[in-house]
Amino acid sequence: MTFTATEPDPPTELLVCIKCRRGQEMPENDRRPGQRLYDTLAANTLPDGIRLRAVECLQNCDHGCTVALRGGDRWTYIYGNVDEVSHADMLLDGAARYTATQDGLIPWRERPEHFKRNCIARIPPLETTHD
Amino acid sequence: MTFTATEPDPPTELLVCIKCRRGQEMPENDRRPGQRLYDTLAANTLPDGIRLRAVECLQNCDHGCTVALRGGDRWTYIYGNVDEVSHADMLLDGAARYTATQDGLIPWRERPEHFKRNCIARIPPLETTHD
Repeated sequence: MTFTATEPDPPTELLVCIKCRRGQEMPENDRRPGQRLYDTLAANTLPDGIRLRAVECLQNCDHGCTVALRGGDRWTYIYGNVDEVSHADMLLDGAARYTATQDGLIPWRERPEHFKRNCIARIPPLETTHD
Repeated sequence: MTFTATEPDPPTELLVCIKCRRGQEMPENDRRPGQRLYDTLAANTLPDGIRLRAVECLQNCDHGCTVALRGGDRWTYIYGNVDEVSHADMLLDGAARYTATQDGLIPWRERPEHFKRNCIARIPPLETTHD
């Protein structure tokens, strides 16, 4: 598939829970898996139209790390069980595919495998024809 | 606590997944638990400032029934494990308490017990000072 080079208005937000411990016991001041995930994403060149945003707790603590995608008239999607090391490329690819849609519904065959199995919940856009 | 009698603009939306089977095997055309929950809520007098909205799948299928609260500059909250029979009053009370807040964060001591233990995820408002 191809992605538009023009930035949509408003852009897609890729929200990352930076407080996530991913179930690990760890000293209070250690860099958490959620922060590592955010830092890894921030070190990448983001696809067009995508804004990275750190959030202090998306409250999906039992199934972290956790991210969400939202923007414009699209459904908001929350994904869990994200690995802070191995999943950065998948997330950026998925975010680009999400941004390429009008409604946030990435066609099933194009959807990253992780998205297929780890959707925590989704929320419809404020105005939608899907319900 | 007291609730404001004036309707906020925009109002709070209480989103209900009407497709939820709550893990039950059931004939395709049977009325599903999610639809029962919606119907029960719709038969009530809604608190001021709250709009009920049916949604076709919030994709929290393993922990249904599922609802979400959102509106204005508040955090969006998704709650699972909702019982379609016994939880309607709790949801309406929780929705009123949510609407009474500016940011969607119901004070812990005032939060319904079910909300404390069954938050699936939350999403920050588009513009927020909380992250």
